[in-house]
Amino acid sequence: MVTRIALLGSTGSIGRQTLDVVEQHPDAFEVVVIAARSNLDLLREQVRRHRPSLVVCASSERRVEGVETLPTPEGLIAAATHPEVDLVVFATSGHDAIPATIAAIEAGKQIAIANKEAIVCAGEVIMPLARQHGVQLRPIDSEHSAVWQSLASGSTDSLARIILTASGGPFRTTPAHELARVSYEQALRHPNWSMGSKITIDSATLVNKGLEVIEAHHLFDVPFGRIEVVIHPEQIIHSLVEFVDGNVIAQLSYPDMRLPIQYALGYPVRLPATTRPLDLASVGRLSFEAPDLARFPALRLAREAGEAGKSLPTVFSAADEVAVDAFADGRITFQGIPRLIETVLDRHSPHDITTLDDVLEADRWARREAERLTREIA
Amino acid sequence: MVTRIALLGSTGSIGRQTLDVVEQHPDAFEVVVIAARSNLDLLREQVRRHRPSLVVCASSERRVEGVETLPTPEGLIAAATHPEVDLVVFATSGHDAIPATIAAIEAGKQIAIANKEAIVCAGEVIMPLARQHGVQLRPIDSEHSAVWQSLASGSTDSLARIILTASGGPFRTTPAHELARVSYEQALRHPNWSMGSKITIDSATLVNKGLEVIEAHHLFDVPFGRIEVVIHPEQIIHSLVEFVDGNVIAQLSYPDMRLPIQYALGYPVRLPATTRPLDLASVGRLSFEAPDLARFPALRLAREAGEAGKSLPTVFSAADEVAVDAFADGRITFQGIPRLIETVLDRHSPHDITTLDDVLEADRWARREAERLTREIA
Repeated sequence: MVTRIALLGSTGSIGRQTLDVVEQHPDAFEVVVIAARSNLDLLREQVRRHRPSLVVCASSERRVEGVETLPTPEGLIAAATHPEVDLVVFATSGHDAIPATIAAIEAGKQIAIANKEAIVCAGEVIMPLARQHGVQLRPIDSEHSAVWQSLASGSTDSLARIILTASGGPFRTTPAHELARVSYEQALRHPNWSMGSKITIDSATLVNKGLEVIEAHHLFDVPFGRIEVVIHPEQIIHSLVEFVDGNVIAQLSYPDMRLPIQYALGYPVRLPATTRPLDLASVGRLSFEAPDLARFPALRLAREAGEAGKSLPTVFSAADEVAVDAFADGRITFQGIPRLIETVLDRHSPHDITTLDDVLEADRWARREAERLTREIA
Repeated sequence: MVTRIALLGSTGSIGRQTLDVVEQHPDAFEVVVIAARSNLDLLREQVRRHRPSLVVCASSERRVEGVETLPTPEGLIAAATHPEVDLVVFATSGHDAIPATIAAIEAGKQIAIANKEAIVCAGEVIMPLARQHGVQLRPIDSEHSAVWQSLASGSTDSLARIILTASGGPFRTTPAHELARVSYEQALRHPNWSMGSKITIDSATLVNKGLEVIEAHHLFDVPFGRIEVVIHPEQIIHSLVEFVDGNVIAQLSYPDMRLPIQYALGYPVRLPATTRPLDLASVGRLSFEAPDLARFPALRLAREAGEAGKSLPTVFSAADEVAVDAFADGRITFQGIPRLIETVLDRHSPHDITTLDDVLEADRWARREAERLTREIA
């Protein structure tokens, strides 16, 4: 049986790799709805290849010939609830996906999700709703896919700890006194993954791992005290779970997003790989170390924001976006990123998150505050 | 609900650790039958603590006061089929367990098995019978427990490879020209596990890993071409499985037999651990290398014997027992062990294994032949 997919965010990195997986398995998957924010040339090509029933794109002026075209953000809900769709893949970034995620859950769609903001900022709304509707949010990123796959070896009640692995980024071994001087270009040199620039900087600061801790909390309904991070520079073990009986189960592979994408799309069926098999002898060694929270305080800040909940994770995420832009422009230093996030978090009066507007309000406040502080610092 | 256990081989290393696990979980387990071959003092103490309904011991003269006592080997069948018993734990070594394993399967008992000989020598009889009776043989040793736990993350049809890990033993880095001169005492110094002397020598020659390859073939019904071995000196990853989609799932823990024992006893429930949790950061590194079949040819011989099947795995196992004794007595060198096994295998005319007598015939022939060759060499 073919799974009919709505792919939201088709022209980004996850979106393109999702189409790779779909094209490798034409008997299993068919893309019936495509949504994209930018890169209209690529979108046109994707539409030519996949002939979807509906295309959603950022502006209504950007019509695609021969298919129904709706504008975002309204179109995302139509995409996520389209009657032909079995599975909605959220390969977008940003808050736009939140109402569409809620709509997809309410429509009883299967959901595979790479969108961090939806879970980090609106996890307190989305996850109870998903449980209420019996919808499982299938994680697409490699760490949460590893946790999800490993959890299958036991039951959720017997889970003791989630251990997320982190590469440690390009400054894993950089002494604290040199971190103040590292450049944006240096921070962009991620040792293992080729990703967008925002997430690469977030990997260097460990902000990304902090967001993943918050996501893990929501996705697997596990208290923060049971979610740990270990630095694993080779990025072969993508995360681990420990059960109450002391057995630790892990997922391993070469870093390749197509594995977690394919697992999320095909679940529970494991479709044939198109990637090279792992050769541990040629990998040679896997190493592990505790994260250094003194040099990378963002991990601590994310955990604190996550534990406090409400609007704080949104503020953490929004302040980080401003901070990364400011670092890219040379307005703040690398170490200024967590400092800025911490100051914004300290100044925030948390409020409940029940709607997208609550998220957007916290987001706007945090961005404004972060921009203001950046100007004051500069 | 309490699982009522028959523990066969209670005074050996696995037997004693099984009783540790039982005593840690008195609400989950009760030992109602005990069988032992030796160490009568310990047996008496075990009987005092656990008050079983039946005790089976090597000689009828060795009666235990106040409980019904039967002699082995006949008593093993009574133990394995005792009406009060839910789960039979085969913690014995040797062929005596084969008829009792068959009897336990036919009686529909749950089975947890550490006995290598039963599976290696009689796998062609036992496994089809177990499948026919819907009985799962729960492996107790750490490697097969790791495979079993990891397999739960997918279905058996989606299994691509089993990757068994091996410590590499004390001579992992010893050059080939020095292997001829290593002593029995050196071979007994296993880097990770404290085990009996026979299995420790078998770890040094990789005979043990070869036997585990044959066991994995039978336990998981996987062709030999899909079972690999990787040397992993730290012995934290106890084995791995690769699924067809390229995802590799592994089980990790500090080396401690109580983990696989407890998993096998409690399956599918994961009972609370009494062991310390794994700390990857303090472990620091895990390393891997391909096994060197030139220095450790026993691994190749085991695989060939396993693939050929019939009486050859029994001949491999029996020839190894004679060879290890001869090495212990200084009659042959360390490298003489695989040479002796290979010569005995070469001289054997394979015959089918359908009964215990077929196993015993191959076993006797191989021991006689191995003894004769040892005398010729000496």
